Amino acid sequence: MKKLNLNDNDFSAELKARTEQADAIIAAYMPIEEGYQQELLTAMNYSMKAGGKRIRPLLLRETYCLFSDANSAVLNPFIAAIEMIHTYSLVHDDLPAMDDDEYRRGRKTTHTVFGEAIAILAGDGLLNLAFETALAGLDSADPLLVARGIKALKVLFEKAGVQGMIGGQTADILAETGALPPSEALLYYIHAHKTAALIQAAMMVGGILGGADELSIGKLAKAAYNIGIAFQFQDDILDITGSFDCLGKPIGSDDENNKLTSVSLKGLEKAKDEVAELSREAIEILRSFPQQNEFLIKLVESLIYRTK
Amino acid sequence: MKKLNLNDNDFSAELKARTEQADAIIAAYMPIEEGYQQELLTAMNYSMKAGGKRIRPLLLRETYCLFSDANSAVLNPFIAAIEMIHTYSLVHDDLPAMDDDEYRRGRKTTHTVFGEAIAILAGDGLLNLAFETALAGLDSADPLLVARGIKALKVLFEKAGVQGMIGGQTADILAETGALPPSEALLYYIHAHKTAALIQAAMMVGGILGGADELSIGKLAKAAYNIGIAFQFQDDILDITGSFDCLGKPIGSDDENNKLTSVSLKGLEKAKDEVAELSREAIEILRSFPQQNEFLIKLVESLIYRTK
Repeated sequence: MKKLNLNDNDFSAELKARTEQADAIIAAYMPIEEGYQQELLTAMNYSMKAGGKRIRPLLLRETYCLFSDANSAVLNPFIAAIEMIHTYSLVHDDLPAMDDDEYRRGRKTTHTVFGEAIAILAGDGLLNLAFETALAGLDSADPLLVARGIKALKVLFEKAGVQGMIGGQTADILAETGALPPSEALLYYIHAHKTAALIQAAMMVGGILGGADELSIGKLAKAAYNIGIAFQFQDDILDITGSFDCLGKPIGSDDENNKLTSVSLKGLEKAKDEVAELSREAIEILRSFPQQNEFLIKLVESLIYRTK
Repeated sequence: MKKLNLNDNDFSAELKARTEQADAIIAAYMPIEEGYQQELLTAMNYSMKAGGKRIRPLLLRETYCLFSDANSAVLNPFIAAIEMIHTYSLVHDDLPAMDDDEYRRGRKTTHTVFGEAIAILAGDGLLNLAFETALAGLDSADPLLVARGIKALKVLFEKAGVQGMIGGQTADILAETGALPPSEALLYYIHAHKTAALIQAAMMVGGILGGADELSIGKLAKAAYNIGIAFQFQDDILDITGSFDCLGKPIGSDDENNKLTSVSLKGLEKAKDEVAELSREAIEILRSFPQQNEFLIKLVESLIYRTK
């Protein structure tokens, strides 16, 4: 896997190529739409093809490249699995009982097209398929890779679970309904778990599969935390300053839903300052590893300083 | 693990003791209710404590005993995990968008107590926790047990997934809404996947962890299929002939929901005959193994010929 000295044009072309590569990897693990449960499989594929930016797959793979140049049989299944987990969380998050969103990325949400029952089951199906996919990656791997794969599975599903993403989603819902009073600690808890946890999973799994030592995995966890928090703060900022065309969802929807956000708590300028500091620190960590990955650093910058 | 020659009184006492043992095993893997996501963890524990009969944990353990007398470090995590999977499926199945049930086992359903959003997340949390729990069981196991554990994980989540339980639940929903026309093939598909798949997982996982060979695992899959179909046909029969006190849900609720059932398709007597034949065949298989487990056979009989 080649290292690049990238200018902005090179990066855009590389990003497009690697996103398409991620799309192809993910597609290979999605089900064929047949059988009595065909509607379910169609809904799962619909939700996975909804034009996501494949941020977690890209971060997983590029972090892997910090530690290993070799292709690993266990890598692609984890790339597909983490996107399935991310997608299931969006499908359930969009449900009428949760955020009640009709559109995501400018496209009808899964329950809007397939109905609530199928959307709930499609989310369940994607989470279950994520386990199956990552687990199948352990087949025919040598004992060292199996050990790394088991460790990576643990991190992935701990970060996805009730002490990770699901916990953050719960706190977000409870904050919206007023069951939890707004506070800075709650805001950070929500972003750290709802968003940063799966970014951490992506980068930690990449590191683990690539053979990173414990110290490096700890540094990746810290960098990924910063990226996740900065990403979410930027989301709050874009909700105020963006446009429907760019963002693919109605502007001010957080505000209408009475969401606790970095902007509502800190104000726009302080939120922007914190994004800059979190980003600087994350990139410093990524530059501290012996192997350099300019694409990864540009990727992180582009994720944080995005306009949509 | 002792083998018994059981009369009916002995069996009742043993069943009570082993069910309590299963309860204790499961409880050890459930989360402490604390943190911002406390409501979620409370909902998960509520749903797990809803007085289930722990059929799958019992079948898993007793099938394990057909092949091994030794205690295995990987056994208890799988016992807890399969009940978490079963429970998450009930929590989601009861949702307003699915079967819309206010009561289960005579007790308010999770969404009725905690609201829909938390119930959806509690189901997601239980499925994720099932995987974490079973996976953690592989820690500090010797290489032979790790290999069996990985094989058992694959069977468990394949049977729980879109080609298993979730597929069956989807077909059931589509049959109810009229999207799939009623047929005998569809009825068997639904029962084989919605119900029998997780019974198969229980017995196959028990066999795999106990060291059963491929031929034996195939026989267990067949016996468990029969038990699952017979169990579900008996459920259909009880829906017609039972009482609210015994069943813990309103009588005739399947009929009201326009459900495709063995009774609606075959009539009551033919459904009963088929339960008897499926049961006979399953027990014949269980008796064919070198090690005998009288408790398992009585358990299977009691599951099928239950009155509630």
